[in-house]
Amino acid sequence: MNIVPVKLGPRSYKITIGRGILRHLSSGLKKVLPSNKIVILTNKRIAHLYKRPVQNILRKKFNIHWIELPEGERTKNIKTIEKIIHQMIKFGADRKTGLLAFGGGVIGDIGGFAAATYMRGIPYVQIPTTLLSQVDSSVGGKTGVDLSEGKNLVGAFYQPKWVIIDTEFLFTLPKREFRCGMSEVVKYGLLWDSKFFRYIEKNVGKIQSLHHNTLEFLIKRSCQIKALIVSRDEREKGLRSLLNLGHTLGHAIETIKRYRGIKHGEAVSCGMVYAAHLSNKKGLLSQRELRRISELLKTLGLPVRWPRHSKKAYQRAIAADKKMTGNKIKFVCLKKIGKASCMPLTVKEVTRYL
Amino acid sequence: MNIVPVKLGPRSYKITIGRGILRHLSSGLKKVLPSNKIVILTNKRIAHLYKRPVQNILRKKFNIHWIELPEGERTKNIKTIEKIIHQMIKFGADRKTGLLAFGGGVIGDIGGFAAATYMRGIPYVQIPTTLLSQVDSSVGGKTGVDLSEGKNLVGAFYQPKWVIIDTEFLFTLPKREFRCGMSEVVKYGLLWDSKFFRYIEKNVGKIQSLHHNTLEFLIKRSCQIKALIVSRDEREKGLRSLLNLGHTLGHAIETIKRYRGIKHGEAVSCGMVYAAHLSNKKGLLSQRELRRISELLKTLGLPVRWPRHSKKAYQRAIAADKKMTGNKIKFVCLKKIGKASCMPLTVKEVTRYL
Repeated sequence: MNIVPVKLGPRSYKITIGRGILRHLSSGLKKVLPSNKIVILTNKRIAHLYKRPVQNILRKKFNIHWIELPEGERTKNIKTIEKIIHQMIKFGADRKTGLLAFGGGVIGDIGGFAAATYMRGIPYVQIPTTLLSQVDSSVGGKTGVDLSEGKNLVGAFYQPKWVIIDTEFLFTLPKREFRCGMSEVVKYGLLWDSKFFRYIEKNVGKIQSLHHNTLEFLIKRSCQIKALIVSRDEREKGLRSLLNLGHTLGHAIETIKRYRGIKHGEAVSCGMVYAAHLSNKKGLLSQRELRRISELLKTLGLPVRWPRHSKKAYQRAIAADKKMTGNKIKFVCLKKIGKASCMPLTVKEVTRYL
Repeated sequence: MNIVPVKLGPRSYKITIGRGILRHLSSGLKKVLPSNKIVILTNKRIAHLYKRPVQNILRKKFNIHWIELPEGERTKNIKTIEKIIHQMIKFGADRKTGLLAFGGGVIGDIGGFAAATYMRGIPYVQIPTTLLSQVDSSVGGKTGVDLSEGKNLVGAFYQPKWVIIDTEFLFTLPKREFRCGMSEVVKYGLLWDSKFFRYIEKNVGKIQSLHHNTLEFLIKRSCQIKALIVSRDEREKGLRSLLNLGHTLGHAIETIKRYRGIKHGEAVSCGMVYAAHLSNKKGLLSQRELRRISELLKTLGLPVRWPRHSKKAYQRAIAADKKMTGNKIKFVCLKKIGKASCMPLTVKEVTRYL
């Protein structure tokens, strides 16, 4: 079992990582929640697999109300937030009631935003069940929902009281979802820690066979890196932008494809390769390292070629990104593996090598 | 001109109070906003009276998009937030765009919540135009909207970058609205500062004739008291609850009447007299002080008798209050004028003397 502290002053919390640690859920919740009344937000797939065991773990000590959403990003909207809140009122949730977000990134984003805004904020706890949410959404407090105009346009920065990561969830996770999580894991190595990048390169086999200690280390190191960055820049004024490595083009691909046929981690994989490519063209990154990056992602089963669309389409999608300020976008370049830096570029400059 | 600092660490800001200071709006905004792009949220009445002068003050330095809402509490819902956000996206608002909430409490609550959630938070500034919003909503960062089940059930704690209070707005404020603001002003004296309470008693004439220096002092002192309390307890864990003096019954009256025929300040006035009454019955407050409280509110033109409804109706309304935790409510009692304290009471105990 590993514990990663996320240091954010009065909003600090811990991430507990381990195999089979879900059985300690009840005692852990007792420590961080002020009341025995809880709402568990999850999706139908997770409920089908895990509702009964979780109910058994918690029922003696907690008064539970389950809210089950359909799977997928499409539920991530304001309507869903309203529905959740109406249900919580009906259940009699008060300011001390805890909300558990039990699922992947979508559940975490929705649950976090519902917790952030219900009666102006109630305590919440994350139980991320996908690799992507374990290494990404569990740190940083970004919550929110999508609008027809774009992703995460309404939201809040709101920190959980605790995050519990049980690696056993990864054994029932669809392979494609697992690969998407690996895309973000590689990102942490790329932007911050060349040793970690090399560790991944050397352990591809163990990773793909879901070797327990390897998984636990991947998650721990990813959370540590993200926690370090977020604790220095909670509200994304500077340093935190580095975490957007691969995301400018990644988001654009998702927008153009209307989130169909490509997953976030896959889009980010293409985006990272493009960022490396652009960095190489600008004389920052060596050809050799560019190849290493592309190779590793490919070996992990991730796409490395950005889809063919017109430059215009890419430019339009990037211009609509909420990270634009004025007419420039903070594009994350790579100086070498393990070292990223932000560069203000125009949309035209960003798309030059597409 | 007076400045009241609100000390909240990295979220600290200033309240500037004075007559005719709106003319300094442009230079003040320049200091606190990172961009010249702004959205001004207001209602139709305020726009009718002040849109042109404000436009003239700001147009040289700012790119402005106006959003005008119908007047009244009924617009304070999630639908309105969605509409505002869609308009902001259309206007091209980014993370540095400032939002100005220009109006009374409803505009402040909606504007603050829109600013808190648009792209996970953009800077906002308050220009409160009613006495109530000047002394109440301008300090404390409570934002939110209503649901069919109750008031402010969805919201956030979110601090403005600056609050500018021009007392001249009070000259065009309907008299009844002014009296409602006075209800909260009296509240600050009652719960914190007996000297301030006596000052109000002695200056009723000047208050009612809108004597400039008197108004400025009332607003300044009210903001100071609220700022002091809020800076010690931003998220209402303890001390801040004192500000709910008169609000338990006040909210219940509003709920029973479905917000028709009675205004918030009036309901709070009845609620404060009842809190004083209950405190007297419990042997905390003297009969003489109870009478002084009731007299002052009456002299200011505020109601002091709670409306006749069945005890059952009151109990149901109070039980639905979001300040309930478990089966007790933190009821604010008065030990004497200038000293309040919280007491956990059951709904039955709260309604005993109705």
